[in-house]
Amino acid sequence: MAYKLLDGKALASTLKSEIKLEVDRIIDSGKRVPHLSAVLVGNNPASEAYMRNKVRSCEELGFSSDLIRKESTISQEELIDTVKALNEDDNVDGFIVQLPLPDHIDETEVLLAIDPRKDVDGFHPFNFGCMAQGLDGFLPATPYGIMLMLERNNVETSGKNVIVIGRSNIVGTPMSLLLSRKSSPGNATVTLAHSRTKNLKEICLNADIIISALGKPFFVTADMVTEGVVIIDVGINRIDDLSRKRGYRLVGDVDFERVAPKSSYITPVPGGVGPMTVAALMLNTLKAYHKYQD
Amino acid sequence: MAYKLLDGKALASTLKSEIKLEVDRIIDSGKRVPHLSAVLVGNNPASEAYMRNKVRSCEELGFSSDLIRKESTISQEELIDTVKALNEDDNVDGFIVQLPLPDHIDETEVLLAIDPRKDVDGFHPFNFGCMAQGLDGFLPATPYGIMLMLERNNVETSGKNVIVIGRSNIVGTPMSLLLSRKSSPGNATVTLAHSRTKNLKEICLNADIIISALGKPFFVTADMVTEGVVIIDVGINRIDDLSRKRGYRLVGDVDFERVAPKSSYITPVPGGVGPMTVAALMLNTLKAYHKYQD
Repeated sequence: MAYKLLDGKALASTLKSEIKLEVDRIIDSGKRVPHLSAVLVGNNPASEAYMRNKVRSCEELGFSSDLIRKESTISQEELIDTVKALNEDDNVDGFIVQLPLPDHIDETEVLLAIDPRKDVDGFHPFNFGCMAQGLDGFLPATPYGIMLMLERNNVETSGKNVIVIGRSNIVGTPMSLLLSRKSSPGNATVTLAHSRTKNLKEICLNADIIISALGKPFFVTADMVTEGVVIIDVGINRIDDLSRKRGYRLVGDVDFERVAPKSSYITPVPGGVGPMTVAALMLNTLKAYHKYQD
Repeated sequence: MAYKLLDGKALASTLKSEIKLEVDRIIDSGKRVPHLSAVLVGNNPASEAYMRNKVRSCEELGFSSDLIRKESTISQEELIDTVKALNEDDNVDGFIVQLPLPDHIDETEVLLAIDPRKDVDGFHPFNFGCMAQGLDGFLPATPYGIMLMLERNNVETSGKNVIVIGRSNIVGTPMSLLLSRKSSPGNATVTLAHSRTKNLKEICLNADIIISALGKPFFVTADMVTEGVVIIDVGINRIDDLSRKRGYRLVGDVDFERVAPKSSYITPVPGGVGPMTVAALMLNTLKAYHKYQD
């Protein structure tokens, strides 16, 4: 079967062009451009890479941005003071505190300190609750990116059986909520699966759409999917690959090579959900700008 | 098969006795008792009945309470002023605004005006988000009551397949979130079904636990359930019954007579989920008292 690749890289690029046009209009009107601040505690290499990516996207779009680096020894109180300063800074439309934080910091307390109007990661419980109740707010970037991907590719979700694998607060749970809502995309019958799920294969075989956000390479195999399935692969896993200069390559949760031929739509890894996440963060920042600062 | 009735009336009574003991201790210590305020707009007969029930429960438990009646012509602004006054009143631990509100009132704006620390109905997006993320907050009363019912009856949920029928913000959606969480009760594989769901019967037949919150009498029939299923019936529907003095009787969403023999546990209607909802509201009020006012 000929499947269609859900090309996140291309779509993110399209979305960014649309955002850039809007930023150009803002500049032409003589107004201040949207500003995203990012707080990075310590020097986790993965966090550094994500941050670089986000800052680079801001630059491409004409947003202003700044990266606030803090030592990993920062106290909870100091970090919360940093958050409060950003809440009060009228030149900051949105900001993110890159997770994970060091062990001695209570992540929840830090997230709760963020003004929901500047919470462009959509992790604050207020925004999470708005999402769940169908009210306006900031959607978490990864699920938001996936919704955009489904929408722009005209992937039908209404009445479809969806399995979301993984119940994290940043991907699986919000994804299940968004696709269950009375909206488009949405109106799907969603099953949220996780480590305690007993008959995963059976549920997958009944699914029209499989969204895997588990973080296990080759977890979703060809025998678990039916012909025509839509596959959204959120996993980003490193596996050894000595043929590559760096000694590894990135793969998703899905055995792409064998699953793709059975699917109707499938996201590649990399170049699928990943770029959409960054584009969604940029859209949230633009929204924060228009909604609260414009 | 001999099924066990999940007797909400009896369990609510037990919970109320436990709460009353605590109120007695509060009184003995010379402190102010917990206070619940209730705002009732207009005179919808169902709302009146619910309110009476809640006020009566407060009296039984030794809580103080007051019912604030407003004309159905009240303006949005006046109603929000009422909410703000309750937010600021240190003698009010928690309050509820009985829904539905008249058409000219924006319910969301009213709910958003409630201080989440006094939102004992658990309807504010902040509390909803806390629930979804597994943080401490007020749980919506009906799902909270069901969780207590499952817990106190030692109904195993971990790894079980659950179908929740109905995706409302006050029952279905929060119920699906609570049972999906990494907690006990919880850790279930939950499918949230609704009007757009296509293969409902098939999903029900695969379910270990069926929670119906749809509001359609005799919707869940014996051919939709497997032997040993657990049935939680949230529906409260009036059907004509000329043998009754008042001309109707209350039934749930489930064809109790035919489904019960196939089930392991089942809630009756009335006397199942209903009384648990009121008990849960009382627990939330006590929690508000201890958490913020004690």
